Amino acid sequence: MTPYTHKVQYYETDKMGITHHSNYIRFCEEARIDFMERLGYGYDQMEADGIGSPVVSVKCDYKKSTTFADVIEIAVKVLELTQVKLTLQYTMTVSGKTVCVAESAHCFLNSKGRILRIDKDLPEFYEKLNALT
Amino acid sequence: MTPYTHKVQYYETDKMGITHHSNYIRFCEEARIDFMERLGYGYDQMEADGIGSPVVSVKCDYKKSTTFADVIEIAVKVLELTQVKLTLQYTMTVSGKTVCVAESAHCFLNSKGRILRIDKDLPEFYEKLNALT
Amino acid sequence: MTPYTHKVQYYETDKMGITHHSNYIRFCEEARIDFMERLGYGYDQMEADGIGSPVVSVKCDYKKSTTFADVIEIAVKVLELTQVKLTLQYTMTVSGKTVCVAESAHCFLNSKGRILRIDKDLPEFYEKLNALT
Amino acid sequence: MTPYTHKVQYYETDKMGITHHSNYIRFCEEARIDFMERLGYGYDQMEADGIGSPVVSVKCDYKKSTTFADVIEIAVKVLELTQVKLTLQYTMTVSGKTVCVAESAHCFLNSKGRILRIDKDLPEFYEKLNALT
Repeated sequence: MTPYTHKVQYYETDKMGITHHSNYIRFCEEARIDFMERLGYGYDQMEADGIGSPVVSVKCDYKKSTTFADVIEIAVKVLELTQVKLTLQYTMTVSGKTVCVAESAHCFLNSKGRILRIDKDLPEFYEKLNALT
Repeated sequence: MTPYTHKVQYYETDKMGITHHSNYIRFCEEARIDFMERLGYGYDQMEADGIGSPVVSVKCDYKKSTTFADVIEIAVKVLELTQVKLTLQYTMTVSGKTVCVAESAHCFLNSKGRILRIDKDLPEFYEKLNALT
Repeated sequence: MTPYTHKVQYYETDKMGITHHSNYIRFCEEARIDFMERLGYGYDQMEADGIGSPVVSVKCDYKKSTTFADVIEIAVKVLELTQVKLTLQYTMTVSGKTVCVAESAHCFLNSKGRILRIDKDLPEFYEKLNALT
Repeated sequence: MTPYTHKVQYYETDKMGITHHSNYIRFCEEARIDFMERLGYGYDQMEADGIGSPVVSVKCDYKKSTTFADVIEIAVKVLELTQVKLTLQYTMTVSGKTVCVAESAHCFLNSKGRILRIDKDLPEFYEKLNALT
């Protein structure tokens, strides 16, 4: 997959003159939504299916600062896939230099809030993710 | 009513070193929610009643910039009240100096999306607002 | 000029299920920066020239709500150009339907904070803008 | 120290009806700034001293969702202090129940971008932090 790109907006900078660190968590979400869409199981489809996908945890290692107008390329990788949890890794680069490496973990819930078994309840999705591990 | 206060957060500044102008619209929302609560008709009550309150329009005149750690006092005033629309005005000051004057207009919808007559459908709320015009 | 496009992100929605109204002010900024860049006087150039461009005022009329994954097309128009102030208008549409009409007014400052005469101090930029009125 | 409190704003929720996960990183920043201020070395003092404090990494474990109007109490703790890095831990609770546990690591730079030795270059601050480990 080609990486997702995010161009840093002026309103995403802070008074240090750099992209505020909280925004990288949002860039991860953008890249993740794009990743799921390209995998054939977009968020709208998921929500239409009555499935919610809460974020269980995130982490972010900031390597280099970025700023307004920088174009960040975000490569998404399946880091770990269990029966109930999907962990994605995001490698963010600007002009080939790594600026941030992040991770997010997710589970999937049905409309009653019960945690789904990804392999059993979403088998097609599981297979596609599994093929990428 | 004593004014609502908002202390400017670091993440609300931008690379010009000042509070990003979009955030004042959010400060208005904070002050409005506080205003409605103190008026005895809070957002949670309103949402529990199945009433939505979309923002019809906003405007903002920026007078002086503010920055990190500034304490903005926001005085809310009923600018206009019609049968279907409520317009509020926000005067924001820092240490007594006006930094921004804003307005927002709102209508009220029932759970089916029909526009409510504030005077007929929300008579108590209307009276309280009317007393402030 | 072809319109600027913004795809609504999940983090830009609120618990009403729609794009939070404050974000449209940010979409205006995105479209404005793109507009200036295509006009040949980008923000980075402007900042490199030591010129700041504070937002004097904004207004926003919300016509229809938008939500996650909507692609908003934003057409930018020079609404008014005086010697010291530039007013832009933003017409935002989704699938051809107007969702929001906004305006923003801007002045330009040199590094000492003095207001610039756009026609005298930034003549090339003024001419380009003037040709679009 | 009494915990820092943040009341969840409407604009901090998303269409799942809960506080968007990226905002917890911002709540950490709010609590951290408050913590440093109460420790006697506020951000404004730090910036006046020409010292920058980039965020090296963050992590966030989400335990329970929160939503609009929830009052989050944030207890800040010095998790680790080395000669060049400070790691803080944030325990966030609502009505006594843990909703999120987060961490952030920070280094300190002088105006030339050189990493400072906290113990040697900021001895008073180091002592105060050390007393809290």
